[in-house]
Amino acid sequence: MTRPVYLALVHHPVRDREGATVTTAITNLDVHDIARSARTYELAGYFVVTPIDAQQAIVRTMLRHWLEGAGGKRVPARMAAMQLVRPVATLADAEAAIAAETGSPPRRVVTAARADGVEVQSFADEARAIAASDRPTLLLFGTGYGLAEEVLAAADARLAPIRPGGYNHLSVRAAVAIALDRLFGDERVAAHVAPEDGSR
Amino acid sequence: MTRPVYLALVHHPVRDREGATVTTAITNLDVHDIARSARTYELAGYFVVTPIDAQQAIVRTMLRHWLEGAGGKRVPARMAAMQLVRPVATLADAEAAIAAETGSPPRRVVTAARADGVEVQSFADEARAIAASDRPTLLLFGTGYGLAEEVLAAADARLAPIRPGGYNHLSVRAAVAIALDRLFGDERVAAHVAPEDGSR
Repeated sequence: MTRPVYLALVHHPVRDREGATVTTAITNLDVHDIARSARTYELAGYFVVTPIDAQQAIVRTMLRHWLEGAGGKRVPARMAAMQLVRPVATLADAEAAIAAETGSPPRRVVTAARADGVEVQSFADEARAIAASDRPTLLLFGTGYGLAEEVLAAADARLAPIRPGGYNHLSVRAAVAIALDRLFGDERVAAHVAPEDGSR
Repeated sequence: MTRPVYLALVHHPVRDREGATVTTAITNLDVHDIARSARTYELAGYFVVTPIDAQQAIVRTMLRHWLEGAGGKRVPARMAAMQLVRPVATLADAEAAIAAETGSPPRRVVTAARADGVEVQSFADEARAIAASDRPTLLLFGTGYGLAEEVLAAADARLAPIRPGGYNHLSVRAAVAIALDRLFGDERVAAHVAPEDGSR
């Protein structure tokens, strides 16, 4: 990828089951799994967004174990993933950090399990948009029942749901993995040269 | 898919970091995440393979909560996923159950983070093989440091590593999600009609 791509896992503002805006709790395996997926697809950073100090502290404690403590020595590959993790209070903080690092605020690309009748971008088109942009990209994923309406509304692009019309209850860890593979994975290239006989 | 596809998450026999054959412990989120991914991609069943009775009991307790208890009433979509989960002692038990249900033993398709110089199948080719076969398919994923050599050797097909040559330390939850999306996802079809200009 030409310009760096970052990922944010948002714990606030997100929706609960009734659609109210809430703050969700950090999930230990979200930090690990998404860091590993982000490293696999060569992202530049993984922001864990929560306004709650004590929740950021949980992430910092994990990072000390993996970056300075026994964890990284025992499993160096895990350290390489955890190096991407950056706890921040707000999405604005994440965007400011990206702007400071790259000289440009990021394009904001959101994901949602439902399309809600709004215009969405295919993964193939978004992959091209990322490659063509002179700005960095920030991919936003919501915990709980998804990103709050104001975050969706402020996006530069919105990715299509992973399974439009079908059962749609993937974990955020699985959704991140699939989205990164669709945007940056080796199979996209392979699929272009596969026989076009329509079989699968 | 014409014939049913099943998935097995193997806790024994798998390798540890030194290559010795071990039995790993059940991870709560493996059961949940992979069940949700399996339901998303319309698999027929998800076998959790462990020879340890007390470990199978953990899975059965989870299933009671989600299938008969409060969990399923609160989150019906999660119940729909957990209905696929079947704890078994051995891979042979999983294969016998599939044979009893479908009238045929399954094709065994293994996955591994490294290719080790053996012949591997692309995801596109394997998707066609699954569709063309008159037998059901069992997709095998290893916990720990991957499936034991005897399981790899007994396979009918071996899928290519998800990231050949790159950082290769995805969680099994992420690897399952990506593999199912590559084999059965909507984007494979979309990629066939995408412009062939090589951009990404």
